[in-house]
Amino acid sequence: MISRINKIGILTSGGDSPGMNAAIRAVVRTALYYDLDVIGIRRGYEGAINGEFIEMDRKSVANIIQRGGTILKTARSQAFQTPEGRKKAYDQIKAQGIDALVVVGGDGTFTGAKVFGEEFDIPIIGLPGTIDNDLYGTDFTIGYDTAINTAVDAVDKIRDTAESHDRVFIIEVMGRDCGLIALRSGIGVGAEAILIPETKTDVPHLLHRMEVGRKDKSSKIIMVAEGGEGAFKLGEIIKERFPHYDTRVSVLGHIQRGGKPTCMDRVLASRLGVAAVEGLLEGRRDVMAGLIHGKVEFTPLDHAIKHNKEVNESLLKIVEILSL
Amino acid sequence: MISRINKIGILTSGGDSPGMNAAIRAVVRTALYYDLDVIGIRRGYEGAINGEFIEMDRKSVANIIQRGGTILKTARSQAFQTPEGRKKAYDQIKAQGIDALVVVGGDGTFTGAKVFGEEFDIPIIGLPGTIDNDLYGTDFTIGYDTAINTAVDAVDKIRDTAESHDRVFIIEVMGRDCGLIALRSGIGVGAEAILIPETKTDVPHLLHRMEVGRKDKSSKIIMVAEGGEGAFKLGEIIKERFPHYDTRVSVLGHIQRGGKPTCMDRVLASRLGVAAVEGLLEGRRDVMAGLIHGKVEFTPLDHAIKHNKEVNESLLKIVEILSL
Amino acid sequence: MISRINKIGILTSGGDSPGMNAAIRAVVRTALYYDLDVIGIRRGYEGAINGEFIEMDRKSVANIIQRGGTILKTARSQAFQTPEGRKKAYDQIKAQGIDALVVVGGDGTFTGAKVFGEEFDIPIIGLPGTIDNDLYGTDFTIGYDTAINTAVDAVDKIRDTAESHDRVFIIEVMGRDCGLIALRSGIGVGAEAILIPETKTDVPHLLHRMEVGRKDKSSKIIMVAEGGEGAFKLGEIIKERFPHYDTRVSVLGHIQRGGKPTCMDRVLASRLGVAAVEGLLEGRRDVMAGLIHGKVEFTPLDHAIKHNKEVNESLLKIVEILSL
Amino acid sequence: MISRINKIGILTSGGDSPGMNAAIRAVVRTALYYDLDVIGIRRGYEGAINGEFIEMDRKSVANIIQRGGTILKTARSQAFQTPEGRKKAYDQIKAQGIDALVVVGGDGTFTGAKVFGEEFDIPIIGLPGTIDNDLYGTDFTIGYDTAINTAVDAVDKIRDTAESHDRVFIIEVMGRDCGLIALRSGIGVGAEAILIPETKTDVPHLLHRMEVGRKDKSSKIIMVAEGGEGAFKLGEIIKERFPHYDTRVSVLGHIQRGGKPTCMDRVLASRLGVAAVEGLLEGRRDVMAGLIHGKVEFTPLDHAIKHNKEVNESLLKIVEILSL
Repeated sequence: MISRINKIGILTSGGDSPGMNAAIRAVVRTALYYDLDVIGIRRGYEGAINGEFIEMDRKSVANIIQRGGTILKTARSQAFQTPEGRKKAYDQIKAQGIDALVVVGGDGTFTGAKVFGEEFDIPIIGLPGTIDNDLYGTDFTIGYDTAINTAVDAVDKIRDTAESHDRVFIIEVMGRDCGLIALRSGIGVGAEAILIPETKTDVPHLLHRMEVGRKDKSSKIIMVAEGGEGAFKLGEIIKERFPHYDTRVSVLGHIQRGGKPTCMDRVLASRLGVAAVEGLLEGRRDVMAGLIHGKVEFTPLDHAIKHNKEVNESLLKIVEILSL
Repeated sequence: MISRINKIGILTSGGDSPGMNAAIRAVVRTALYYDLDVIGIRRGYEGAINGEFIEMDRKSVANIIQRGGTILKTARSQAFQTPEGRKKAYDQIKAQGIDALVVVGGDGTFTGAKVFGEEFDIPIIGLPGTIDNDLYGTDFTIGYDTAINTAVDAVDKIRDTAESHDRVFIIEVMGRDCGLIALRSGIGVGAEAILIPETKTDVPHLLHRMEVGRKDKSSKIIMVAEGGEGAFKLGEIIKERFPHYDTRVSVLGHIQRGGKPTCMDRVLASRLGVAAVEGLLEGRRDVMAGLIHGKVEFTPLDHAIKHNKEVNESLLKIVEILSL
Repeated sequence: MISRINKIGILTSGGDSPGMNAAIRAVVRTALYYDLDVIGIRRGYEGAINGEFIEMDRKSVANIIQRGGTILKTARSQAFQTPEGRKKAYDQIKAQGIDALVVVGGDGTFTGAKVFGEEFDIPIIGLPGTIDNDLYGTDFTIGYDTAINTAVDAVDKIRDTAESHDRVFIIEVMGRDCGLIALRSGIGVGAEAILIPETKTDVPHLLHRMEVGRKDKSSKIIMVAEGGEGAFKLGEIIKERFPHYDTRVSVLGHIQRGGKPTCMDRVLASRLGVAAVEGLLEGRRDVMAGLIHGKVEFTPLDHAIKHNKEVNESLLKIVEILSL
Repeated sequence: MISRINKIGILTSGGDSPGMNAAIRAVVRTALYYDLDVIGIRRGYEGAINGEFIEMDRKSVANIIQRGGTILKTARSQAFQTPEGRKKAYDQIKAQGIDALVVVGGDGTFTGAKVFGEEFDIPIIGLPGTIDNDLYGTDFTIGYDTAINTAVDAVDKIRDTAESHDRVFIIEVMGRDCGLIALRSGIGVGAEAILIPETKTDVPHLLHRMEVGRKDKSSKIIMVAEGGEGAFKLGEIIKERFPHYDTRVSVLGHIQRGGKPTCMDRVLASRLGVAAVEGLLEGRRDVMAGLIHGKVEFTPLDHAIKHNKEVNESLLKIVEILSL
């Protein structure tokens, strides 16, 4: 494995996700294992522009595998969307002697990386760090498993009180353009219905099922992705149609972004972090490292963001069957 | 211990709280220990009126000590607020042969119990089951410790993402008339400020502190009790005054009512459940069993609900000192 | 989908695993969805022999998706290993009118099912319910994801105290013949070394790495699978070789079998439960339903138990790289 | 509040406990609030002897309130038990300009502090940091509430598998000379029996109760404190006497020392940390700050360690009643 890469830069960008720290740790330690230097870039692309660099050694990443958030912090950068901003970032990066980048983030992060990699001669590998699981080229993104478990834990608690009061709860989880959090966590909590943006939100069908459904069922949980039918609006519709139900709305919100990563997210982040560094050393660039069917695969950045994941139809059918 | 009581009825009423099941278990098993019969009344006073009774034995309460919610379900009863409703409830209870009641709940539950106990000849003992900790006559109510830990867990997660993005988070916790959840969980998460209804909500003071405070502090958590300044309104004020901050609002909502009770809540519920039955056998009535300074004490129901708990001033000062 | 199956029996057998209840729920509800009757068989094969049958309806499986253990209970049956025992079980099952079986368990359960299916004319589908993840024909078994998260949570706690005291901890996790729990949870906690039965336990290599390794690393976690080098024996070796270390041994034990299932385990159990019933209706028999690369696949029972899963070599290498 | 104290030293010593970091944070921030300097002493008394000092500012203690362990690390020091060792520690401390100490720990820590305070002219205040809750002068020690919740969480998991298999589990929790962890967590899990060193371990009574007890109870949990009858020895006795039971032993071990502190432990640590600094400024010395009946109280160090806490008899009776 011969390579001209001597110093790697690593940054996290966009919305944070649990497991980003495990990914940083893996990138740093793998780089050191291969005798490379590593520079941490704080606050994503914004920090690259502003020159927020810190040297990373083994101790920089000790005892962080279990922490939510990102020790490098993250931000959304307006400036990086301009040619001037990107030029400045490139100059700063070059001044540090960084000759390859690992960027951890989602959609927006990879869009920026793609343009940056086209404009300037610097190899970049992306790692899928987002709770939304909306990237093509990896079965799961880093943070998704934690987010669905956080949602499930929260809804388990709400189920306790829903059961005690025979209430209908409409629960909104994250996922603006993507219903995967709602879908899997909804199955996990035994939701009576799940509304996601990928399928035409079938409110009449939901109302019909509530009408003909079991009368003896004491509580009902309806999971909605934030990008779909608004939870509060749906709440109004249900209250009007079923005034005898005690209907409540709960928005889980930002708890879904934080917390200790699950084992799966830690292992995923560790594997992909190793793969990113080894990929750069093998000469790869402008790709995302993902895990497909248990194996590391590299996908061009523009494929990763353009191709929407299909919703698993069999999962939707399971909801119908099991929520009887 | 001689007594004419042979059959005890138990119900949970009002908002549910974690530990209610542990209390039910303790009441049932203690009654059986003293060779009494026990009838569970479902859905609180509403179930008493409607005759929803179930016999309870040892197995009825097996393996429930760790569960949130209440296996007897709970409700708020309009009918019980009328003399006719209460008369009907009394007749149903008498028809069952129940000669004493244990009611688990908060303010509204005890108000109902007091009137009922005055109108009819039936001894009643209340157990403080509410997450709000707003009853006089017990250091802590059953469910409070769990609720503050749930809030702390949630805010710990939010802190992860707040830190990663250098954000200000305004977090609303439960407690309409009572800031004790906000106060203790706010200290627990290291909140930069805590706004509660008991103290004149000092928004100007908060804004001043934010202005002169540390500039190097990356994230800020402001805890507000739902009964105080509205979280969303406060968010608007802060956004206007500090437009450079990235300010978000999060309402924790109903997760605070559910979940496995903490050890403290289970032990408290167990002790008070035993005390309630023993208290009835000793001839006590129209009192709440509470734990004061580690000892079981009985407080007249009207005292328990009329006397507001004072906010511990020393806790408020701690926030000022530690949030530096 | 035409079928002569009218009544399905379901049992759980062998060591319990989190998610078994979610599987039972899915089997029962899917059967009801397809207008079949369902009989629960308690205590596995032992209960079949002894005639411990209960009718299952929608309510029997309400609110169990989140519970550890198995509501049908489980057992290991000596009697079922004899032809007489199996004959008795068959007669009991037939007397109930059961014409197909779903069995949830691991190795031993499927061995029994295979013999039973050969001796008697009853279609059987197995579901992989074991924390060990040691079955061929499914990427993950039901319970594995929960078990590794439980192990990770426990070791995170131990890491806190290990760090505070600069200690070496040898931690034994479950997995008599299979190191997959140790491997993945070990990566998840950032273990310095992982010893599993699948690889020749290389104690000299471990000792060498400890000798030449970083002196500045304050704590060390060594994960061992129970089936490998004994944790206590290894502790003695390390204490003798490195007397200046404060070395401790901790056996995680039975906590790994219990607890609320993770979202992944609930979704997996739900999908496979649906698949089992639909598989029976499609005429499948003597197979295990598993999830391979995100899709339901059926594998003959004897394949599922005979073919050992290979240890992912890339995971072992990751430990070497990241534990620097 | 006039005082000659300008620089405070803080150390943690002995076994670590969850909440120590919250106490460190509170001491540091309170000292800064009162314009004092603060020096952290690493590894307890051992670090004082070896001169392991670090300056503490607001950022040193940012984002640690939720972390288990102690960022200052801890150790048991042989050298500090000699006059020479203590002299060396004093010289080092004086060389740093430290003129008062806060020591966080238990029995051994306070014994050392007492001797040190007698030999040298330096005011010391102790904070009760131990999971055992075995100090007089405070209702609860910092870490106890977390430890009992960790034990309860673990046993809840074990109960899942115990129930599924109808097993008897003997579970050993920490507490060499003190059964308070076993007692309260035992009540919390609904243990069938609790054996603690404070009461003559009544094995015959336990065996008798098991013999005459309910036959229909499927699982049994027996909690034992490590200082009492050995768990494994007790396991042998029960196996011999009740060979038809499937009896298992589980030692919870070091997980009880770690983990995120509960809200109660964080609030307790915060209050006592503030009190320690304010106490020093008020001229107090050689005392422990504790919380008695909700109020901060100071107790002479030798009282805190010499007077054993009495076991609450009413708690023992509760076990008898509820484990029916």
